[in-house]
Amino acid sequence: MRLVVPLQGVVQGRGGLLLGSLIPCALFYFLQLYLKRHRSDGSSRIPLSPPPSEIPPTTSVQVSNLANFLAEFDDSPDDIGLQSLAQDSYDHDRFTNPDKMIQLSSSENKLCLDLIEKWLSENLKKSLVGTDDFTLSVNGIATYQPFDGLEELKMAMSNFMSRVMGGMVKLDPSNMVLTSGATPAIEMLSFCLANQEDAFLVPAPYYPGFDKDVKWRARVNLIPVHCQSEDNFTLSIATLEEVYRQAEKRGVKVRGLLFSNPANPVGNLLTQDMLKSLVHFAKNKNIHIIADEVLAGSVYEGEKFVSLAEVLDSEGLDKNRVHIIYGLSKDLSLAGFRVGVIYSFNNTVLAAARKLSRFSSISAPTQRLVISMLSDNKFIPEYFETKQKRIRQVRDELEAGLSHLGIKCAKSSAGLYCWADMRGLLRKPHNERRELELWKKFISVSKIIITPGSACHCIEPGWFGICFCELTSENIPVIIERIRKVVETCKSSC
Amino acid sequence: MRLVVPLQGVVQGRGGLLLGSLIPCALFYFLQLYLKRHRSDGSSRIPLSPPPSEIPPTTSVQVSNLANFLAEFDDSPDDIGLQSLAQDSYDHDRFTNPDKMIQLSSSENKLCLDLIEKWLSENLKKSLVGTDDFTLSVNGIATYQPFDGLEELKMAMSNFMSRVMGGMVKLDPSNMVLTSGATPAIEMLSFCLANQEDAFLVPAPYYPGFDKDVKWRARVNLIPVHCQSEDNFTLSIATLEEVYRQAEKRGVKVRGLLFSNPANPVGNLLTQDMLKSLVHFAKNKNIHIIADEVLAGSVYEGEKFVSLAEVLDSEGLDKNRVHIIYGLSKDLSLAGFRVGVIYSFNNTVLAAARKLSRFSSISAPTQRLVISMLSDNKFIPEYFETKQKRIRQVRDELEAGLSHLGIKCAKSSAGLYCWADMRGLLRKPHNERRELELWKKFISVSKIIITPGSACHCIEPGWFGICFCELTSENIPVIIERIRKVVETCKSSC
Repeated sequence: MRLVVPLQGVVQGRGGLLLGSLIPCALFYFLQLYLKRHRSDGSSRIPLSPPPSEIPPTTSVQVSNLANFLAEFDDSPDDIGLQSLAQDSYDHDRFTNPDKMIQLSSSENKLCLDLIEKWLSENLKKSLVGTDDFTLSVNGIATYQPFDGLEELKMAMSNFMSRVMGGMVKLDPSNMVLTSGATPAIEMLSFCLANQEDAFLVPAPYYPGFDKDVKWRARVNLIPVHCQSEDNFTLSIATLEEVYRQAEKRGVKVRGLLFSNPANPVGNLLTQDMLKSLVHFAKNKNIHIIADEVLAGSVYEGEKFVSLAEVLDSEGLDKNRVHIIYGLSKDLSLAGFRVGVIYSFNNTVLAAARKLSRFSSISAPTQRLVISMLSDNKFIPEYFETKQKRIRQVRDELEAGLSHLGIKCAKSSAGLYCWADMRGLLRKPHNERRELELWKKFISVSKIIITPGSACHCIEPGWFGICFCELTSENIPVIIERIRKVVETCKSSC
Repeated sequence: MRLVVPLQGVVQGRGGLLLGSLIPCALFYFLQLYLKRHRSDGSSRIPLSPPPSEIPPTTSVQVSNLANFLAEFDDSPDDIGLQSLAQDSYDHDRFTNPDKMIQLSSSENKLCLDLIEKWLSENLKKSLVGTDDFTLSVNGIATYQPFDGLEELKMAMSNFMSRVMGGMVKLDPSNMVLTSGATPAIEMLSFCLANQEDAFLVPAPYYPGFDKDVKWRARVNLIPVHCQSEDNFTLSIATLEEVYRQAEKRGVKVRGLLFSNPANPVGNLLTQDMLKSLVHFAKNKNIHIIADEVLAGSVYEGEKFVSLAEVLDSEGLDKNRVHIIYGLSKDLSLAGFRVGVIYSFNNTVLAAARKLSRFSSISAPTQRLVISMLSDNKFIPEYFETKQKRIRQVRDELEAGLSHLGIKCAKSSAGLYCWADMRGLLRKPHNERRELELWKKFISVSKIIITPGSACHCIEPGWFGICFCELTSENIPVIIERIRKVVETCKSSC
């Protein structure tokens, strides 16, 4: 059957001019009818160009639609956590003074800051300016360096990532573009893999930052693939297929599948089999597959992480569509250093990302510091051994404390959150509004900032992320006591 | 007179349905006729979406149009200089070994690297981790900091910029967003001030990086306002008006005027009167005005730099449209540190830029280093005194050497280039091809990389930028000797 299209006259080339004009005539008739009935339909998306009525009077200078959108963009719950964190950093008495806010929403890893501190104090000067050939080093930090990262850092990073990912995969430094954090790495990949208005599928609940990194400037849409609590929020291929089919039906061009593994915030791991299925899914649909593996080195003792790169190595699968994101904020407690990685098997993407890295390059002194730290074969294993123990301990204690309050957590194998089921504390009917009510109650009653599930696009209201990596065993009782207050308030008001 | 529009049915609300359908019918008829005749019209711009015929077969995964464009984007002459610089940094024998390439195209300021080296060796550890309260400092470098820069750095930067700009203007840290270099600062401003397909006017010859920073991702166009050698490449309001008028006639939405002051590459300064005229021009056209002042501290002895901020202060002019770019790569020889500044008087732009700074933030160790360096009231004045002397000396000697070869330079008051008139060495007819022939001759005959005027959109073929900030008095004779070879080759072949 031939397709009838509005520009038939152009496509057919003969005799279609009249038909190609009459079809839009009919289409416009129905379009107008539709618009008449839906005129007040609002949209929260960033407009490509402003509707005429919204253009401000010419007396004040106009800024871009993006600037207007961002300036009015309300801080989301995770932003509020991050801001409080910047302010609170020096409030050493926040665990003893009940009037002080404690943020448990942003997964800044402070669990092993003492180890970083010790290393820096011992190695700082040597890392930055060397000892023997000072001139060489100052040339290497004050002057221009390749925007996509120093060769030495790429080599050190490859070895480090390989170790963190279980030692089963050898990474090639030439597949790497280094960026000032995983955040610009995700944005850069979005710019490289999809055109504006295209979309990525993303299993939900997902890391709230994805929305900003993918949508704001690259204007790529995210379509959540909702996972359910009854499956411990595990992704299923059937759901993925269904969401893809629906997107296709709506005419959306899906260009990739983006996921974090270990999953952030829930903390479960994708099995080797599941990863293979995802690669096959991406191949069948001819789309990209992007794994955010920034928590690869934050897996609990006894659990096994499998990198997407490992599956490819063992299976000889189509690599051209495969991209990995990494960074040092979570695994190495170095959020302030702003070090991120794009690891891609696609040469076009690598070439483009190298050019774009001019906008997000890592400063050279920081690169020198990190080269030195990652290459320290005594420090790195010790750090990870200690970290794994501390994560496990704090997590277990927090989970036990929550359990005593009747709050269960999703089963997790990695990461820095307890993904807590507080549906029992929610007023009915359960919806996003009720969830945010409870979130505000945590702030007002207990002075605790946690992450509401809705910020992570969780489809079931009442789940909350509690980040434990600012805590030690000592102050877990303080946190539990504060949460108890909220539980009691809820019980008395329900 | 009422407007007849395609969606008349919606706009009028009564009786317009039929008319609103018939009008598009007619429009589509003519659109198809037009498209039939212009199907092969090529364009070098980045396409927003690919024409159907260009979609590759489904066996290989597609990347974005931007990635395809960038991956095939030829390195421009200034890129080649920058790459050679990264490779050449350690070629200490490049001035003695005639087979080694010398890059004189990228304005990386190495004139005072010895002073930076000395400061770092004395102050490094104290700057980064302090002496008394180590814990506080490690918290302040390893952990998350505000993406748009530390408050202390903004304060130090305000004082520093005020000093560099002649001490006549007081800058407010709250008008500042710090970025990982001036490059992302320009891109971020482009995203904030203009929508895609809008344009900025920019006096030419201009800094080649603007093309990448403004066009690549923000998709804002640059319209050159050509300045002539007979006026020593000085901007005139009459030309500006004419170019604006032409753009308006073509339906282009001009959203701003972007210029560097001191001008890069020519090196002339905008007078106070000219700056006032430009602000008035921007006000009349209701557009933004963006001054790139990264060379403010590289003005020659006896010359006076006037910042755009100073003019506003003295005149009480409309500030909402005024934005300044700054960075430490040129003035403080710290290109590798990646420190840039957006200084804006527009609160919407500031709010948006703060949100966007998540993609280009400066790493915290570097911020701590810079705070310490900028606040060193002994070092900074000494550095600038020495630098001013060295710039003047090297520049004068290079200019004199070139003059002996019959090559005159444009009059300049600042900056790190000699803008040299080599029209006499060009084969006829003078055009861009001949200019690039000569540029290649410099590489092949003399192993020198300089910047051809066409890379800076200079309208007169035969002008070249020679950056002198890698040179000392000692090696100027080497450079002149190498250039003499090219001159002789040209004379024998002309």
